[in-house]
Amino acid sequence: MSIFHGLSAFPITPANEHGVVDTEGVMRLTAHLSANGVDSIGLLGSTGTYAYLSRTERCRAIRAAFKTVAGKTPLIVGIGTLRTDDAQNLARDAAAEGADGLLMAPVSYTPLTQEEAYQHYKAVAEVTSLPLCIYNNPSTTHFSFSRDLLERLADLPNIAAVKMPAPAEGAVLQELAALRSSPVGKLAIGYSGDWIAAEALLAGSDGWFSVLGGFLPKLAKAMVTAAHESDARAVNQYQQVLEPMWALFREFGSLRVAYAAINLLELSSAQPPRPILPLTSQDRRRVEDALKACTAL
Amino acid sequence: MSIFHGLSAFPITPANEHGVVDTEGVMRLTAHLSANGVDSIGLLGSTGTYAYLSRTERCRAIRAAFKTVAGKTPLIVGIGTLRTDDAQNLARDAAAEGADGLLMAPVSYTPLTQEEAYQHYKAVAEVTSLPLCIYNNPSTTHFSFSRDLLERLADLPNIAAVKMPAPAEGAVLQELAALRSSPVGKLAIGYSGDWIAAEALLAGSDGWFSVLGGFLPKLAKAMVTAAHESDARAVNQYQQVLEPMWALFREFGSLRVAYAAINLLELSSAQPPRPILPLTSQDRRRVEDALKACTAL
Repeated sequence: MSIFHGLSAFPITPANEHGVVDTEGVMRLTAHLSANGVDSIGLLGSTGTYAYLSRTERCRAIRAAFKTVAGKTPLIVGIGTLRTDDAQNLARDAAAEGADGLLMAPVSYTPLTQEEAYQHYKAVAEVTSLPLCIYNNPSTTHFSFSRDLLERLADLPNIAAVKMPAPAEGAVLQELAALRSSPVGKLAIGYSGDWIAAEALLAGSDGWFSVLGGFLPKLAKAMVTAAHESDARAVNQYQQVLEPMWALFREFGSLRVAYAAINLLELSSAQPPRPILPLTSQDRRRVEDALKACTAL
Repeated sequence: MSIFHGLSAFPITPANEHGVVDTEGVMRLTAHLSANGVDSIGLLGSTGTYAYLSRTERCRAIRAAFKTVAGKTPLIVGIGTLRTDDAQNLARDAAAEGADGLLMAPVSYTPLTQEEAYQHYKAVAEVTSLPLCIYNNPSTTHFSFSRDLLERLADLPNIAAVKMPAPAEGAVLQELAALRSSPVGKLAIGYSGDWIAAEALLAGSDGWFSVLGGFLPKLAKAMVTAAHESDARAVNQYQQVLEPMWALFREFGSLRVAYAAINLLELSSAQPPRPILPLTSQDRRRVEDALKACTAL
């Protein structure tokens, strides 16, 4: 079992309108997740708006989280950025601030070639001794990993895991089997896209990189535990209860829903970084209903 | 005629491996473009790797260009970035450093809604008195402007132009007519995607936002002049000569080809920012052949 196994909870990073991280807020959120038994915290993931925060503020967020959860819950830190040298510096920062592992997406402006992405990962893996998870997230990076690239990356020292995006419904079992029977199989293989979590967990994926886990850690953890106990009936019950939440994730993007939910649960009053707008009050009411369905459990 | 009419040449921004702009190199390149009669210089466009340069370095690049071309050639400056407050600051910087106009793409990580993009442009247009060109570039931003959004943006004060991406071959005339007969028609409408330049120019587009113009300004300008004289035969001759160049643009992305061409023409020895890799020596030979075809004219 590596730090990339089990439930990895991805919280928002509370910050003010100028992108200054609210370190007290980070401590409160990460303490809440840790106390509720998540297996790791995915700080500065997409939901943690890493792409919108400066290097200094990213350091401040890691320091605050480390102060809170060190020795209790492993800290996985997102280090994605456009330039290779900047990503190397973020990897060094994360290690210096106490991260247990790294997560990196091939953030793109000019669309990258497969070879460019390979060299980018190689250059970053070379400056760290922390285990690194490949963050495969075409919905934000618009980069598609070929199977061949994933296999080449799996051979690099320090590359320990891959965070896969949700495939079409019903396709996880086959994809996972294909990955496991290839050189990619030496990596821990986890999924994001919370709506396929039930399917991915029952298919035996190693980890769930979860937005839900960032605001309803107990529920997300219960689902993972049920899957580990091969209790398909319980997993599917959770899935049914969560259906309205997943529908909102798909409609608005999980980031906007996460902010609304965290506001409603009074875990933080932070708002997303502009240009991303908070949900309208009408849409927030739908998030409230979805939360009620979950907490009625 | 606004600064967004005619040939806008988009040079690379020479910088070292750490992203420090070579201001002498910027001065040399912009002087070359100005001396060869381009109608404007599009500094810090996608080809100018704006997305890969810090705020400080972007300021240094503008200052160097302004010093070189002020009073000779209008300077359009790219101010795209993820955060709205950062884009506002870049707009202020560009004005302070002497820009004549601004160009802004809806740079995205979390995919933006139409309303978020609208508010982003509105907030930036409000802090500047410079004319702003909407940079519609789905190949890098993955954001698609709806017609409705373009119409709303056209109504904002300071928004003066739109840089459209290449539509399917043969579709420019119809698209341009549709845009001109809508509220978008009050904007100057130019095209990027150099391979459709001949078609767009003959269709009567207002501007050509040109990568080619950044390294072969004389040839690009000759093509624009021929189009303005309605000399379709001459335009199509240029187009034929440029076909191998356009094929390379499509195969490798125009950015990588521009660096190779600029190196081969000895205008600069700068390399693209990592993770973007220079073309292999084999591919550079193909760029050399395409250049020879052009310069044989």
